[in-house]
Amino acid sequence: MAKIVRKNYLLTPGPAPVPTEILLAGAQETIHHRTPQYLEIQKKALEGLKYLFQTENRVFTLLSSGTGAMEAAVANIMSPGDEAIVVVGGKFGERWRDICKAYGVVVHEIAIEWGAAVTPEQIKEKLEEYPNTKAVFTTLSETSTGVVTDVEAISKILEGTNVLHVTDAISGLLAQPLKMDEWKLDVVVAGSQKGLMMPPGLAFIALSERALEVVRASTNHRYYFDLRAYDKSYPDSPYTPGINLVYQLARAVEMLYEEGIENVWERHRLLADATRAGVKALGLELFAKRPGNVLTAVKIPEGIDGKKLVGYMRNEWGVTIAGGQAHLKGKIMRIAHLGWMSPFDTITALSALEMALDKFGYKVELGAGVKAAEEVFRREDI
Amino acid sequence: MAKIVRKNYLLTPGPAPVPTEILLAGAQETIHHRTPQYLEIQKKALEGLKYLFQTENRVFTLLSSGTGAMEAAVANIMSPGDEAIVVVGGKFGERWRDICKAYGVVVHEIAIEWGAAVTPEQIKEKLEEYPNTKAVFTTLSETSTGVVTDVEAISKILEGTNVLHVTDAISGLLAQPLKMDEWKLDVVVAGSQKGLMMPPGLAFIALSERALEVVRASTNHRYYFDLRAYDKSYPDSPYTPGINLVYQLARAVEMLYEEGIENVWERHRLLADATRAGVKALGLELFAKRPGNVLTAVKIPEGIDGKKLVGYMRNEWGVTIAGGQAHLKGKIMRIAHLGWMSPFDTITALSALEMALDKFGYKVELGAGVKAAEEVFRREDI
Repeated sequence: MAKIVRKNYLLTPGPAPVPTEILLAGAQETIHHRTPQYLEIQKKALEGLKYLFQTENRVFTLLSSGTGAMEAAVANIMSPGDEAIVVVGGKFGERWRDICKAYGVVVHEIAIEWGAAVTPEQIKEKLEEYPNTKAVFTTLSETSTGVVTDVEAISKILEGTNVLHVTDAISGLLAQPLKMDEWKLDVVVAGSQKGLMMPPGLAFIALSERALEVVRASTNHRYYFDLRAYDKSYPDSPYTPGINLVYQLARAVEMLYEEGIENVWERHRLLADATRAGVKALGLELFAKRPGNVLTAVKIPEGIDGKKLVGYMRNEWGVTIAGGQAHLKGKIMRIAHLGWMSPFDTITALSALEMALDKFGYKVELGAGVKAAEEVFRREDI
Repeated sequence: MAKIVRKNYLLTPGPAPVPTEILLAGAQETIHHRTPQYLEIQKKALEGLKYLFQTENRVFTLLSSGTGAMEAAVANIMSPGDEAIVVVGGKFGERWRDICKAYGVVVHEIAIEWGAAVTPEQIKEKLEEYPNTKAVFTTLSETSTGVVTDVEAISKILEGTNVLHVTDAISGLLAQPLKMDEWKLDVVVAGSQKGLMMPPGLAFIALSERALEVVRASTNHRYYFDLRAYDKSYPDSPYTPGINLVYQLARAVEMLYEEGIENVWERHRLLADATRAGVKALGLELFAKRPGNVLTAVKIPEGIDGKKLVGYMRNEWGVTIAGGQAHLKGKIMRIAHLGWMSPFDTITALSALEMALDKFGYKVELGAGVKAAEEVFRREDI
């Protein structure tokens, strides 16, 4: 076995690669947060977030992982005994359900086979069944399966009702088109370590005017995630903000603004298309029935130990893709297209995959996956 | 044209990629150089250099580009009127010749067609023709052509004579096997921005005992590059050393020591083999008749504008390979395997090359170059 330089290629659906200029933005001196100098930076970052969420409303920044923003959504708009329709088609739909239950919410679950997408009709039927529903909880991109949900169509179902539409866009924001205001989404949550090209540490939550009314009226127990405090101090922070993370956020929103949000969506779409062409050319099967642009979930072929395959690529070559979660452990692999990722990261993933499959005894034509991806790149004349 | 994230892939024969941990070693606080704390770091770095040069002798560190170390070699061992045999088979052979001439040395040039290698017999003949020769100047890896010189065989020719063997190993050190003491090389020069995986800024010169005698006896005019001063102050520095660069050097020699020099040579060989398999599979022709492991020089096919091809890959995709120099401008491209480079950098270079050739109208089977490289990697079971 010849020795190699082992670089890290992070092709996971979060954390996603962070460009050096954002890493270095975080390495600047920590200044005090109760100063005009700091507030200037935070204001700029918060303004930029509105563009990324495609909203005129305030986007609140929490110092937590994305789950914190999910809890903030539930804790601020749902009270014990309130009813919610929750779409559960993977690990992150389950998280909505679990948080709702933890807050005493009555959950009407729409159980979706993992890998399938909820249809707007299913939402409609559930609503008819439970007319007292206060909110519908959806997942823009179900990270555990790679499925994208048609949240725009679901919002249309809710039009004219008082039912709030709460979307987990943690992995989906920026990888998938999302227009919060135009699509009439009431609550959208996101995290920093995804399309925003940052390390983990910040979570975001944006609310429509009517959702904010509900928040203001809620008497639920909560403190750290009480959005009334964030609203009151906005654009300042109620507690110590993630100062150095906010430096990175300010740089990230600047880079994404310069790129243009349509271009950001488009480059995720391009890498997803190339990856799917590549894995199909290797004779592999896609797992998701409605695949999005955050990641491509691929079925592990018969006779191959998926955990070993993914582990080998990561341990020996530094090429880190994700395996399956929960009952999909060892059964699927997930190749991300998320964040600061170039076409040559996609080429690297496919090259590593075909070499690893060959090593593990799966009959594969070396180069075939890369060739198919290159054909996509050439067709689109990158 | 779809938008992409443009990352930088540095596949040039210097500067070569620098790992983040070496970059960050240079970002530490600058301390004063006349302190025991600093000297400790420099000592460690200098000890490590001996291993990399495979010598028991001192290796002096200059704060200059590699050309400075070449000048130091000439200025310290040659006096005006001294005779030298200089092998000139490319831009860096020319540099030896030009520096020698600038110092009033009588140059006996062995002109080699660019792309070919000097033979030990040619050295022997020239020596017989000019028996008063004081030194032979060779180039381990001629960066402009990708040719590697058999310096070991040339040293054998010089055995039993007083003729010094001076080798430019600036790009070659670590990419090519080199055993200074065992091969009886008298002067070896190197630079930091190559196999040492550092930014440019430091140059190195190692001397055999008999070469050092010559240095001590020389009355040539010189000051900054007067090796007597470096010898006298060793392991300290006569003038301000490149403090932060020396931090990086200390880290680099540590990493290379941990890896083991045979492994370092071997990984360069592996990437060179994979690259050559790849370009041949694309129907391209190698330029060098005796190709080394620093870089692979490839002829630009008829009808393709080599400058535009290389410029396109760099400007549009961030994949930076080198073009040709001097009369080879536009006629060859040079793909490096140098320094902190992984197999997936090689895959990236080949993938970008095949896509660019396709774009420029050269008939190429997309994926064929990558496939051939993958076959090498699989055969060697990386």
